Amino acid sequence: MKLAVLAGGVGGARFVQALSEVVAPGDVTVIANVGDDLEVHGLHVSPDLDTLLYTLAGLGDTERGWGRAGETWNARETVELLGGETWFQLGDRDLGLHLVRTEALRAGEPLSAVTARVAGAVGLEQSLLPATDDFLRTRICTPTGVFDFQEWFVARGHRDQVEDVVYTGREAAVAAPGVLAALEAADLIAIAPSNPFVSIGPILAVGEIRSAVERRRDQVVAVSPLIARRAVKGPAAAMFESLAGGAGAGDVAGFYEGLIGALVIDEADAADASAVEERGARPLVTRTLMSEPTARRALVETVLGLVPA
Amino acid sequence: MKLAVLAGGVGGARFVQALSEVVAPGDVTVIANVGDDLEVHGLHVSPDLDTLLYTLAGLGDTERGWGRAGETWNARETVELLGGETWFQLGDRDLGLHLVRTEALRAGEPLSAVTARVAGAVGLEQSLLPATDDFLRTRICTPTGVFDFQEWFVARGHRDQVEDVVYTGREAAVAAPGVLAALEAADLIAIAPSNPFVSIGPILAVGEIRSAVERRRDQVVAVSPLIARRAVKGPAAAMFESLAGGAGAGDVAGFYEGLIGALVIDEADAADASAVEERGARPLVTRTLMSEPTARRALVETVLGLVPA
Repeated sequence: MKLAVLAGGVGGARFVQALSEVVAPGDVTVIANVGDDLEVHGLHVSPDLDTLLYTLAGLGDTERGWGRAGETWNARETVELLGGETWFQLGDRDLGLHLVRTEALRAGEPLSAVTARVAGAVGLEQSLLPATDDFLRTRICTPTGVFDFQEWFVARGHRDQVEDVVYTGREAAVAAPGVLAALEAADLIAIAPSNPFVSIGPILAVGEIRSAVERRRDQVVAVSPLIARRAVKGPAAAMFESLAGGAGAGDVAGFYEGLIGALVIDEADAADASAVEERGARPLVTRTLMSEPTARRALVETVLGLVPA
Repeated sequence: MKLAVLAGGVGGARFVQALSEVVAPGDVTVIANVGDDLEVHGLHVSPDLDTLLYTLAGLGDTERGWGRAGETWNARETVELLGGETWFQLGDRDLGLHLVRTEALRAGEPLSAVTARVAGAVGLEQSLLPATDDFLRTRICTPTGVFDFQEWFVARGHRDQVEDVVYTGREAAVAAPGVLAALEAADLIAIAPSNPFVSIGPILAVGEIRSAVERRRDQVVAVSPLIARRAVKGPAAAMFESLAGGAGAGDVAGFYEGLIGALVIDEADAADASAVEERGARPLVTRTLMSEPTARRALVETVLGLVPA
């Protein structure tokens, strides 16, 4: 059984981890968001790829949810002492990855190749692919101005109201090597309960990927990131309210309309099942809170239950 | 009393420190070697500027002689884990400086301006100037090939015999802002007991600096880095043997011929005094080993004794 998973950072990593408790990790290909990649002090940082890498390789700080376990912050302390910007926190262990990756990218190695090399070095069992090797950036349009995702999310604490989300570079971006093949070969394509606008949206903004998912929509299942119109974490609910006019399961189905055969929604949203159906997706009602082991298991079984026998 | 000091890294920093025990640090301008600057993982590293900065600001590891006190090596551990190069050791605290500096250089800020900013942030009392803001690199010619200084010194453990030392970029390099003015205004110009070929040579390779020193040669005093034909540390003696045909005090005076009015030599080299005179410099015999407090004081008094009353 081959799985392809479209995933953002923290929620995506937890979802892939949950799937990998049941499916052989070697059969899972993760297609990761790179829309919130950024340069910090000239280093290329891929927050979602890194969260996936660290979490799935067992190197992650499970309490904080991002970054490396046993992290130290001495480089950052120096940067602060010297008056440099420190709004995007880079730990010392984390920095080593950014140094290696940035050097490789400058030497012309594609992001997907560096990622594969780094994943191999830490013994990652899943295949980890960036959605694209090309420049693709999620930009948040607010009444105050247009911001890069991390600038809006971290530096400004996502307080500016989101009027639109655009993906700069989407016209020219093509799928990274291996992405389309993984989508074609998968018995099931799962969309993690990551933020649709800023984590999954950038992946689907790559035309080739969107078309490949569309072609296989009967084998595509998304997991709603919302429970009772709220996100477990982050700004997904507020974004749905402001960009889709509501944060119900039907709104999530609407975001993925034409792309998915089924949408997993929480028991708390059972009343929205018909709204999901109206947007062309089969509603699958279960418990979706991944922090609870039994709910996590129910979620995984629901998702994997869709795999054709 | 204004002092200008031409200095390399470790020896230069100790010498400036010793001078600053007697002269007000605010009256000391350090003109530092940048010939062994290098890129590590795409970061601009200035080993001599950094050793001077850390030592003089009290941030240095006094036992190791280079790098920051209380340093950690977690970024390096990650780089190693990921199969990256680790021959040039970058500590985590140290990395913060390289990040800030590299970012500023990429944004077009000259090295002298970043250095001044960083020095101000750590409360450095001395003025610290790179010899030049331009590209200038010390290259070591050996039977095995031509190497950048740090590559030859660190990566290859300075085992290849030195056939020549060249300074790439010397024709186009001009003095950094403040350097010529400091040389003009100084009551005394001191040349630290750093390696003449690879620490002082690159500074003097900048034509404007060489001329300015020449013009003021009666106010220039160098301290020999050799004691009884041996260097306290490093490859200076072997370089003198192979490039100047000998490692006596007269050979050191020969290196600086036409540039200095006096050469401080160790009591162990008193017999070389006439050889120093033959190369046009007044020999000043004293104890020169800076690790001994009384010798250090004697050295400083000998140097400062040359300041015109």
